[in-house]
Amino acid sequence: MNLLLTGRFGDAERDQWRALLTQAMPKHHLVTSGELFDRMRIEVAIVANPAPHSLDGLPRLRLIQSLWAGVDRLFDDPTLPPDVPIARMVDPALTAAMSETALWAVLSLHRGFFVYQRQQRNAVWRQLPQRRADELPVTLLGLGTLGLACARALAQQGYRVTAWTRDGSPRDVPAGVVHVHGDDALWPCLNGTAIVVNLLPLTPATRGLLDARFFGALPRGAALVNLARGAHVVEADLRAALGSGRLGHAVLDVFDSEPLDPKHPFWRHPKVTVLPHVAALTDPRSATAVVASNVRALAEGQPIAHLVDRTRGY
Amino acid sequence: MNLLLTGRFGDAERDQWRALLTQAMPKHHLVTSGELFDRMRIEVAIVANPAPHSLDGLPRLRLIQSLWAGVDRLFDDPTLPPDVPIARMVDPALTAAMSETALWAVLSLHRGFFVYQRQQRNAVWRQLPQRRADELPVTLLGLGTLGLACARALAQQGYRVTAWTRDGSPRDVPAGVVHVHGDDALWPCLNGTAIVVNLLPLTPATRGLLDARFFGALPRGAALVNLARGAHVVEADLRAALGSGRLGHAVLDVFDSEPLDPKHPFWRHPKVTVLPHVAALTDPRSATAVVASNVRALAEGQPIAHLVDRTRGY
Repeated sequence: MNLLLTGRFGDAERDQWRALLTQAMPKHHLVTSGELFDRMRIEVAIVANPAPHSLDGLPRLRLIQSLWAGVDRLFDDPTLPPDVPIARMVDPALTAAMSETALWAVLSLHRGFFVYQRQQRNAVWRQLPQRRADELPVTLLGLGTLGLACARALAQQGYRVTAWTRDGSPRDVPAGVVHVHGDDALWPCLNGTAIVVNLLPLTPATRGLLDARFFGALPRGAALVNLARGAHVVEADLRAALGSGRLGHAVLDVFDSEPLDPKHPFWRHPKVTVLPHVAALTDPRSATAVVASNVRALAEGQPIAHLVDRTRGY
Repeated sequence: MNLLLTGRFGDAERDQWRALLTQAMPKHHLVTSGELFDRMRIEVAIVANPAPHSLDGLPRLRLIQSLWAGVDRLFDDPTLPPDVPIARMVDPALTAAMSETALWAVLSLHRGFFVYQRQQRNAVWRQLPQRRADELPVTLLGLGTLGLACARALAQQGYRVTAWTRDGSPRDVPAGVVHVHGDDALWPCLNGTAIVVNLLPLTPATRGLLDARFFGALPRGAALVNLARGAHVVEADLRAALGSGRLGHAVLDVFDSEPLDPKHPFWRHPKVTVLPHVAALTDPRSATAVVASNVRALAEGQPIAHLVDRTRGY
C-alpha cells in the first residue's frame, strides 16, 4: 500500500518516524509530504497535526491514522475527508507517560512540593502538615485509555479517585475507583474534591466545561491539573479562581495558544506550574508497531483498532 | 505503667501527642518532660529527638520507644541507658509518605520536571526527549521497611530497581526488584544507574558513604535523592560532583545541619532541590497505636516490635 506521512514535524523527528515506519512496514511504500508523490495512489495518511488541506485530494484514502492521542485538531480542517475512518494513537509509552505526569502532579500537590519549591527560592525552612493520600479526594475527568491508566496509578498510591465521564458506556474500572457519569453527577463530586485532573477529549460538549461555575463548585483551595486541552478551560475564569483563592494551584500542560506567549502571566504566576505540552508524547519506538498493526489490518480486511467515533468527536 | 513523653516538640505538637497517647492508653499514666514527675517511676520513655541527659536517671526504665524511624541521634547521647531496649517507629503513614516522596523525586528527575520548573522562570517553552521508566535504572540504598515500600512503589511504576544493602539478611523483596548486598556489590550497580535514592540507616559504617569515590562511580549526569541523613553525604564532594556535571541534580531532604542555614549555597543552587526534612513525618494519629501496642506488649511480657539492634545501630 501507499502511505503518506504528514504533519508539523521537526526535521529530525520526521526522519525518525520515516525510518521507523519504513523498517516496520518494508512491504509498503511510505512518502512524506515534503517530497513529490502521486496523490492519486495514497491509501493511508499517517498524521500528526497536519496542515489544513493536507488530506484533501486523496481520492483513494482509506484510513487516517493519527500519531497523537487527541484528534480534535483534525476536525478543525474543513477539508477533512468526511467518510474516511480515523484511528487515534493508543501507544503504551504515551499511556504510561500520562499516568506518570498525573501521578507526579497529584503527589506534588498533595505533599506540598510546589510550596517547598517557592520556599526554596526564599531560603525558607518550614514544614507543612503531612496528609495521607486518602485524605485528598481526586476527581478525574475522563476515563478513556489515558484516564483508566491514571486512575489505576492514583488508586495504587492510595488516593480516593472518582472518575467522571459524560457518557455511561461501560469501562473496566480499576479497583478502588468510583465511576460516575452524566452532567448531573459532575457537581456532587466537585463538592468534596481536593484535586481535579482533566483528561477529557475535546469536543463541542466539553469545550469550556472548566468555567466559573465549575471552579465555584470546588471547595476553597482545590487544585486543577489540566493534561487534556487548553480549550477545556475558560482562561479568564481560571485566572479569577486562582486570584480569589478558590483554586489553590493549577498545573497546566496545555493552553489556548501554544507555545504559551512569553508574556503570558501564567509563566510568573506563583500558583501556576507551566509545562510545555509534555504530559505524554507519542514514543515513535512503540507507536510504529501500532501504526503497522492497523495498516496490516486494513490490508487484510481486518477491523481497525481505536477508531474515532465522529459523532462523539473522539 | 508510668510513661514519659520527651523530645523537642512545638507546644501544639506536644499537646497533640499527649492527647492521642492518653486516649490510646487510658490505663497508663503519661507525663511530659515539661512537668514535674517522679523519675523513679518511669518505665517507658516515648522519645522524639530528646535532649541529651533526658533518659539519664530513670532507674526503672524498661523501654525507649522512638517516635521517629531513625534512631541515630539517640546514640549521640553518652548518657543513653546502655541496657534498655529501644524500639524504632514503624508507622504505616510514615512509610507511605516516604514512598510518595521517593516516587515524586524519581518521577520529577525522570520526566524533567525540575528542568521545566527552571524553564518556567525564564518563560522558556521547550520539550525534552521523553524516556520510558525502564530506561532509567534506579539504585536504592537501604531496604528496610521504608526501602521496601519505596522499591515496591517504584517497581509498580515500571522502574528497574536494584536495592543495595550492607548485610545480606533476607527480605521480602518486591517483584521486579533486584537485591544485592555487601561492599563489593555496590560499585557495579552504581556504574549503570540513572538515579540513586538513599534510605540507609545512619551508622558508623554508612556515615560518609556518599563521597567523591561514590559519585565518581556513577555515570555522568546521574541524580541523587537523599531521604535518609545528611551525614551519609560528604557535602564538599557532593558540591564538587554537581559542579563538574558528574551529578545532574540532587534532591536533598536532609543536611549536616538542620534547619539549613539561610546562607547555604544549596538554597540557590540550580541543580539542587531543597526540602525541609519532610520526606516522611510520623503521623501521630496512626503512630499512637504503634506505641500503645508496644506498651501493651511490655506490660504483658510479649515481644516488643521493631527493636533496634545496638550493635548494628538500627
